[in-house]
Amino acid sequence: MAESDKGRRTIRDVAKAAGVSIATASNALNGIGRTKAETVEKVRRVAEEIGFRPNALARGLLKRRSHAIGMITNDTYGRLTLPMAAGVSEALVDHGVSVFLCATNNDPRLARLHLESLLDRQVDGIIFTATRLDLRPPPEFAKLPIPVVYAFAEGPKESVTFHPDDAQGARIAVEHLQGLGRQRILHITGAEDYKAARIRADSYRELVGSGSSVMFGDWSEEWGREAVAQVLARGSARPDAIFCGSDEIARGVIDALRDNGISAPEDIAIAGFDNWEIVAKQTRPPLTTVDMELKELGRRAGLAIHQLCNGESVEPGQTLLPCSLVVRKSA
Amino acid sequence: MAESDKGRRTIRDVAKAAGVSIATASNALNGIGRTKAETVEKVRRVAEEIGFRPNALARGLLKRRSHAIGMITNDTYGRLTLPMAAGVSEALVDHGVSVFLCATNNDPRLARLHLESLLDRQVDGIIFTATRLDLRPPPEFAKLPIPVVYAFAEGPKESVTFHPDDAQGARIAVEHLQGLGRQRILHITGAEDYKAARIRADSYRELVGSGSSVMFGDWSEEWGREAVAQVLARGSARPDAIFCGSDEIARGVIDALRDNGISAPEDIAIAGFDNWEIVAKQTRPPLTTVDMELKELGRRAGLAIHQLCNGESVEPGQTLLPCSLVVRKSA
Repeated sequence: MAESDKGRRTIRDVAKAAGVSIATASNALNGIGRTKAETVEKVRRVAEEIGFRPNALARGLLKRRSHAIGMITNDTYGRLTLPMAAGVSEALVDHGVSVFLCATNNDPRLARLHLESLLDRQVDGIIFTATRLDLRPPPEFAKLPIPVVYAFAEGPKESVTFHPDDAQGARIAVEHLQGLGRQRILHITGAEDYKAARIRADSYRELVGSGSSVMFGDWSEEWGREAVAQVLARGSARPDAIFCGSDEIARGVIDALRDNGISAPEDIAIAGFDNWEIVAKQTRPPLTTVDMELKELGRRAGLAIHQLCNGESVEPGQTLLPCSLVVRKSA
Repeated sequence: MAESDKGRRTIRDVAKAAGVSIATASNALNGIGRTKAETVEKVRRVAEEIGFRPNALARGLLKRRSHAIGMITNDTYGRLTLPMAAGVSEALVDHGVSVFLCATNNDPRLARLHLESLLDRQVDGIIFTATRLDLRPPPEFAKLPIPVVYAFAEGPKESVTFHPDDAQGARIAVEHLQGLGRQRILHITGAEDYKAARIRADSYRELVGSGSSVMFGDWSEEWGREAVAQVLARGSARPDAIFCGSDEIARGVIDALRDNGISAPEDIAIAGFDNWEIVAKQTRPPLTTVDMELKELGRRAGLAIHQLCNGESVEPGQTLLPCSLVVRKSA
């Protein structure tokens, strides 16, 4: 069976093939010492020909850099993490920085193990992400000897944090519904103890004014259906549009309206929040919804950690990144 | 701002605090040389007290091991990858092995960049995963100098590969429907060019025999709805059960039946495949479906790559891991 260093070329092989000493080969590859330019060129050409890889571990030791960062997340579904991880990776891959992905599954023991392991292998920095904006990292994070960037999570004061601009996201959705001439816009959303739910609701209330009505519940399709049942039972002036706090809620809302012979967008226009395509593209009709641009959020977090790891300074505080509206058929 | 080595304790600090030479401190921590047992103990205690971390990079150099592996996936959604990654991580975290997650987004340039980067940092091995069983890795994989394990992907001949047992998974679903006394079981599934679709269909045909009927289409809810429309238009003997090739297809099937006043499981029992909870728990009624046990698949792949990296031998060939049936309300 394969072994871990089977076939790996060493500096010794390069020196032999180039007909120089190991010291000369090493100097040539590292661009140090007083080796003649033509020798440097020859050593490098030979190294490439025989497939020698300069040892990243050794270079890391020299520079006290591992050129790796850790991304710690409490998310196991990957719904939020994977797009962010793709953005982080996009920002870093061209700099030769790789990403250790550590899913803690909300298990403090696992979180500590991952953190120990990341420190042990001397990652240059850590990106902490979560499934909710107001999730705080474990207390160990406060005293880490390396830079930390927070994305879609609550960092300590003065930390570098990236969040989607939930207020602006809610605003473009509600303005879109208003732009369609809708006058009685209802907001059905998730749990009020989520910061994102409160921010979006406040933004909605500000635009809709005195006619506003927010129904908090949870982040499920079931709550969307249940909320519609409550609204229809009231019997009073029906909404002509519903802004939903998530795509899953929107799907429940649309299904329940359909069951009652009420069609979207003709009778009631529907907007969602997430642009989670597996849901948003499958509602009938397909869902108009807010996209939090999570990949861009990840890219920004990746660039920030890269700057911090290079010793460059990054403005501390929370950066809000704009959301976009994806218009499909439901509004 | 934080810098990459701010606050990191060095071997120098340990030596000073323990009142010994750097060489002695180093020997004590590495368990080499002829240092007295009490000195070794003192150095180690002091190292722990001041928060010194033995340098994983340096240890990696000594042992030619980085104690890191790469996991390369073409999957960006994370639906299949994240549970597998959780399993891989679970198998490796206690061995101090971390996982670089590299999503290629089906982009060959990105795949090459990630592979270069992983080799450059001398990972001990690679796990290749994909979104379909028959996806082959890029040609570069054939000649890697380190072990590779394939999970939910098609490895070269004689490679170590882990797949869910799709035939057995289909069998337990169909047997469950038969156990409910259903006589006319239809199979609605995804694209026939997917190996998994063909294996599941063959397994279904074998059990159902002469009355079998397979409708290939794609892996979407929309196809589930369209297939039901075709079945109802035929008008001939209706199925009393439908085995669906994915949860999304099953959701489309259930919704379309509901729209036509046909209820599950009373009129037609429905079984899915995937146990993707975001879909399977939200159908009305909740879906009885096959779980591919992807976390266990990841755990097995993690253990295999760990053995290979240790130079232990692992039986080459394809290992099929059993699926389980999650019984909810639809059948």
